[in-house]
Amino acid sequence: MMGAMSEAFDAVDVIIAKRDRHELSDDQIRWVIDAYTRGAVAEEQMSSLNMAILLNGMNRREIATWTDAMIKSGERMDFSSLSRPTADKHSTGGVGDKITLPLAPLVAVFDVAVPQLSGRGLGHTGGTLDKLESIAGWQAALSNEAMLAQLDDVGAVICAAGSGLAPADKKLYALRDVTGTVEAIPLIASSIMSKKIAEGTGALVLDVKVGSGAFMKNVDRARELAETMVALGTDAGVNTVALLTNMETPLGLTAGNALEVRESVEVLAGGGPKDVVELTVRLAEEMLEAGGRGGQDVRAALNDGRAMDAWRRMIAAQGGDPDAPLPVAKETHVVTAPTSGTLTSLDAYAVGIAAWRLGAGRARKEDPVQAGAGVELHAQLGDHVEAGDPLLTLHTDTPERFDRALEALKGGYAVGSPDEAAHLPLIIDRIAK
Amino acid sequence: MMGAMSEAFDAVDVIIAKRDRHELSDDQIRWVIDAYTRGAVAEEQMSSLNMAILLNGMNRREIATWTDAMIKSGERMDFSSLSRPTADKHSTGGVGDKITLPLAPLVAVFDVAVPQLSGRGLGHTGGTLDKLESIAGWQAALSNEAMLAQLDDVGAVICAAGSGLAPADKKLYALRDVTGTVEAIPLIASSIMSKKIAEGTGALVLDVKVGSGAFMKNVDRARELAETMVALGTDAGVNTVALLTNMETPLGLTAGNALEVRESVEVLAGGGPKDVVELTVRLAEEMLEAGGRGGQDVRAALNDGRAMDAWRRMIAAQGGDPDAPLPVAKETHVVTAPTSGTLTSLDAYAVGIAAWRLGAGRARKEDPVQAGAGVELHAQLGDHVEAGDPLLTLHTDTPERFDRALEALKGGYAVGSPDEAAHLPLIIDRIAK
Repeated sequence: MMGAMSEAFDAVDVIIAKRDRHELSDDQIRWVIDAYTRGAVAEEQMSSLNMAILLNGMNRREIATWTDAMIKSGERMDFSSLSRPTADKHSTGGVGDKITLPLAPLVAVFDVAVPQLSGRGLGHTGGTLDKLESIAGWQAALSNEAMLAQLDDVGAVICAAGSGLAPADKKLYALRDVTGTVEAIPLIASSIMSKKIAEGTGALVLDVKVGSGAFMKNVDRARELAETMVALGTDAGVNTVALLTNMETPLGLTAGNALEVRESVEVLAGGGPKDVVELTVRLAEEMLEAGGRGGQDVRAALNDGRAMDAWRRMIAAQGGDPDAPLPVAKETHVVTAPTSGTLTSLDAYAVGIAAWRLGAGRARKEDPVQAGAGVELHAQLGDHVEAGDPLLTLHTDTPERFDRALEALKGGYAVGSPDEAAHLPLIIDRIAK
Repeated sequence: MMGAMSEAFDAVDVIIAKRDRHELSDDQIRWVIDAYTRGAVAEEQMSSLNMAILLNGMNRREIATWTDAMIKSGERMDFSSLSRPTADKHSTGGVGDKITLPLAPLVAVFDVAVPQLSGRGLGHTGGTLDKLESIAGWQAALSNEAMLAQLDDVGAVICAAGSGLAPADKKLYALRDVTGTVEAIPLIASSIMSKKIAEGTGALVLDVKVGSGAFMKNVDRARELAETMVALGTDAGVNTVALLTNMETPLGLTAGNALEVRESVEVLAGGGPKDVVELTVRLAEEMLEAGGRGGQDVRAALNDGRAMDAWRRMIAAQGGDPDAPLPVAKETHVVTAPTSGTLTSLDAYAVGIAAWRLGAGRARKEDPVQAGAGVELHAQLGDHVEAGDPLLTLHTDTPERFDRALEALKGGYAVGSPDEAAHLPLIIDRIAK
């Protein structure tokens, strides 16, 4: 009654319905997303609706309609002209999670095209684009035509999502970030899946991280998110599977932009930390399977140089020089093991915050990042260390940051007896429809 | 960590604390109200916090601090220079609730000053200022000095609240109105009490309406609101009591601005409907008691002209002509009783919406109201009516409004046998500390 008469619904009525635990109708959802995108629903109205959704939930039908409405707010990409199937991967974000870098060229080796639209880091988890931008000359922005051409030619592209994809999600995500409503599973699931479905990939593998360094701190919530996303993808015709993977401790031995590129190149050269290799290979197998080309010897392509060749072509296609030396931070500070024994804990969140504070991440969207900053680990969970041995090295261009990084690491690691070491598996579960 | 470093708290942290069912600290509450008032907490942040408060609640300590912070956002009035005690009344709003009009002068007769800061109507309940503005020449706006002078001279004033009182509440109320967060008891209680405490009254009687025509539809929620407000007032040094009163059916025989003034004058002349007289007398007794002047024969002052004299002085002091004829609507439409029998239901909400649609209320703050529009009742709940007798008369200057008003009244009244009549008492309960 209070709204403009030309609108199909009144924003207050929609908010009150969800506040009072009613289901929203498809028409209400489609209207509210459309009206918010064109400014007829105000930011403060969407934010109270978001909080009501976070606290009262949405059912699968509501989430599916919400996601579809966000997709319809913008353009959809179309890869049907490619001669190869497409498969993409999305990680919910973790500390030291550089997997996209070796994974995209590895999958491309097997004639499945990887159209990776990535983002920048905000908070304690790094962003794939920030990492790649530490390579001299590499450009994140590509036109849709250039992206398609690179997929046809190289078979893999990692680039920034254009502004035409799910603009409602872009607006909504910025709002959720400042209003305490990021952690709602219906909103997380619809945000991720609207972009991935609009992107037009044929298959999708979701890496849902669980643990202190992840968005989802426990397995139950991670599983709920994974199941929701797998259902959304499948219903939209995208062949979708999800892995729940361990993020109690960092992935590999590096957290920071250039540091992670270096480690990724080691993996592409047939080396690198065991956990990074294992997860890269498993995700590649899942992507090939979901893309209809399963059953291949993925690991061989890391050892025989084919994945490295694809990497070099992928980097060069976007102006990057794969042979240029990577940036190195101006200052380092070494933390040594306090006693001899087994590294029984090494907390992903603590390492993530330390890397962030050293300059690897940003506090605000418009902040720059330091390419060389971050944390280098000299041991992983379960390794034996000797008192006085280097445990981790902090890297930064701005040494006044060491103190706050060290503060973040306090209590973040422990050396003890072997039987105290936590042993959550790297891959916790697999969710498929 | 994401906020400006100069702020004591980060808005997102405060929102997340309430979202996750934690208590807010006094410092957090004082900061968030202050920062919102000066614009450092954005509207969309306050609205998601409001929704979290609505759904997760606040305890008494949090509500008290929230109220105090709103009081401190503006000026406080001071009536200590008056030779008389002060007592005020606040109604949570109902249909046909014109009680303030006869009540203020009636209490003034007994040397207790009544400083009534009132508002305008929005939605289906009328506003006291709208009603008085149907009197030729009457002005709602008074300076603080003029208000104090009138209290000293006449002993009663009904005027618009100045903008200096609890500005945080003004901003917050406008936000709640468009974001579906009006119905939160902590926010209702703090909104009402911050203004009443800042206004500086020594005693306060709250008329908390219950039923279809009221904000609170059931007795339990009304009691919770009343208890919260009585505790807030008492703790702030205001002698506060509350009555829970019946709003299933309209008060008296009129709903609409000039119509209600006419009925109020009848009460001041010793006549008027029984329920209006009873509630006016009871509230006057409570105000005098709370103001330290209890035990007087209030009803006598209605019958012997003293209350009428005070009314005439109060209206004249604000430029009004108490002898001017009241505006009358251009058109009327009579609804007759469908059968003979007892009026077993007459729904307050239906009558309120009908009066609103006829032009007595406004849909937007900036809309004008029609002075003569409204609904006049020819019978009250429990009265005997004959088939074809007039039951109610609709008044409006714009006859094209009759149809929508009649639609609102559909099912809003029933004639049946005497034993079917609802008999909730007029005064349901009394709450004191």
